Amino acid sequence: MTPHDLAIALDPADRRPLYAQVEDAVAGRIARGELAAGTQLPPEGQLTEALGVSRTTIRQTFQNLVRRGLVEIRRGTGTFVAAPKITHELTALSGFVEDMEAQGKTATARVVGRAIVAASARVARQLGVRTGARVVRIQRVRLADGEPISFDDTYLPRELGEPIMADALETRPIFELLEQKYATPLVEAEYRMEAVAAEAEIARALGVLAGAALFVIERTSYAAGHRAVDYEKLYYRGDRVRFTTRPARQPVGIAASTSRKRR
Amino acid sequence: MTPHDLAIALDPADRRPLYAQVEDAVAGRIARGELAAGTQLPPEGQLTEALGVSRTTIRQTFQNLVRRGLVEIRRGTGTFVAAPKITHELTALSGFVEDMEAQGKTATARVVGRAIVAASARVARQLGVRTGARVVRIQRVRLADGEPISFDDTYLPRELGEPIMADALETRPIFELLEQKYATPLVEAEYRMEAVAAEAEIARALGVLAGAALFVIERTSYAAGHRAVDYEKLYYRGDRVRFTTRPARQPVGIAASTSRKRR
Repeated sequence: MTPHDLAIALDPADRRPLYAQVEDAVAGRIARGELAAGTQLPPEGQLTEALGVSRTTIRQTFQNLVRRGLVEIRRGTGTFVAAPKITHELTALSGFVEDMEAQGKTATARVVGRAIVAASARVARQLGVRTGARVVRIQRVRLADGEPISFDDTYLPRELGEPIMADALETRPIFELLEQKYATPLVEAEYRMEAVAAEAEIARALGVLAGAALFVIERTSYAAGHRAVDYEKLYYRGDRVRFTTRPARQPVGIAASTSRKRR
Repeated sequence: MTPHDLAIALDPADRRPLYAQVEDAVAGRIARGELAAGTQLPPEGQLTEALGVSRTTIRQTFQNLVRRGLVEIRRGTGTFVAAPKITHELTALSGFVEDMEAQGKTATARVVGRAIVAASARVARQLGVRTGARVVRIQRVRLADGEPISFDDTYLPRELGEPIMADALETRPIFELLEQKYATPLVEAEYRMEAVAAEAEIARALGVLAGAALFVIERTSYAAGHRAVDYEKLYYRGDRVRFTTRPARQPVGIAASTSRKRR
């Protein structure tokens, strides 16, 4: 691609800084689908010349585009339009395979561990068993179109988990097994969400650098009668996913009195 | 504090690794409120001796506790019980001050920027104005009990934003000003959530290292008639907040057909 193909026209009447104008022009073309993922951008030097702006300007533009996750630098090769982040809706309880299918992507899993283990205090509290009780632990790397997206550390009560350990976890999601094979429909879940730095083991499994930002969901899913049947820690690559939700405003009086009760 | 005060008893019948037993014992005491935030833990050497375990074991325990955000190492001083993460509920649209008051914390703000700027393509799309239109930008560091928690980059349509620029933004939240002073009740919002590495400027404002994991919420809030009145990027310290939500399960048939429509 040449700077000409990028079709950027700077408007002398525009009062925004030059780097912001170039940034918005490129971001806009990516958002409109005019620059596909994987497209290589022209080198800094060519852009500098073609647009008549300084190297500092173009560098600032590229830095901002990288930070926004819109382009990625491949060392020694150049700068490329990044694959868009995968968006998951948090408005309903759904599993990885359902989320991926909603985006037209193929979900697969690599099972990296299945074992019967003693429940830590945390796992025990979430599953409603006593500390040290035997539970089933399943560790999987989840992939979308072959790319690692999340590392899932799942704990199941022993009576439900033992048959599931023997199932084809590479292809069948645990939610589906619970609901369809083991007659345990899920009713609701609690999500706790955090941003953390990746520890070495999980970074390796996901193909990111240790310390990279991960979006972590700790999820306890319940069947009828508020029976906890699945406790997971889902470590998502921060550079590949985003989550959305649409909360409504509660009338201020109600919100305040609810908060007070909660305190 | 001495190892004796920590009151850890290892059970020889427990089959979990030693580091996990010590970790769970300390985590359990923190969770039950028996070890208050700011309590200094005994040094590694003393624990090694008192519990009759190896230095590697205690090191693994401490590493895991740090990673879980339960303890923090203060260089040259020792290891201390960390303040618990602040939990925000995402089930209803609420502002920072409301979230903090619900936790019994005092919210304040440090205003670091207020200006009229040209809307970037992104800001324009979210506020429903044309690119380059004048909008109001307000940048604040939000604090809870005096500790920086988030960096808020807020954009408002000019007609609403200009009077708000002159308001006492150190003490009055923008949601409250919109709803109570400017008769613009909020109805709902769209949240987009991501985990990102902190860039230098925001890291400095929050008192964390560049590259630290941040929980970023991009939020567009709407008044009646789906009129966008407030577009924000909220950069929360990953080590200080978590978010919760409780989605219900949709019957599987419905979820699937909704997804298909959405594709």
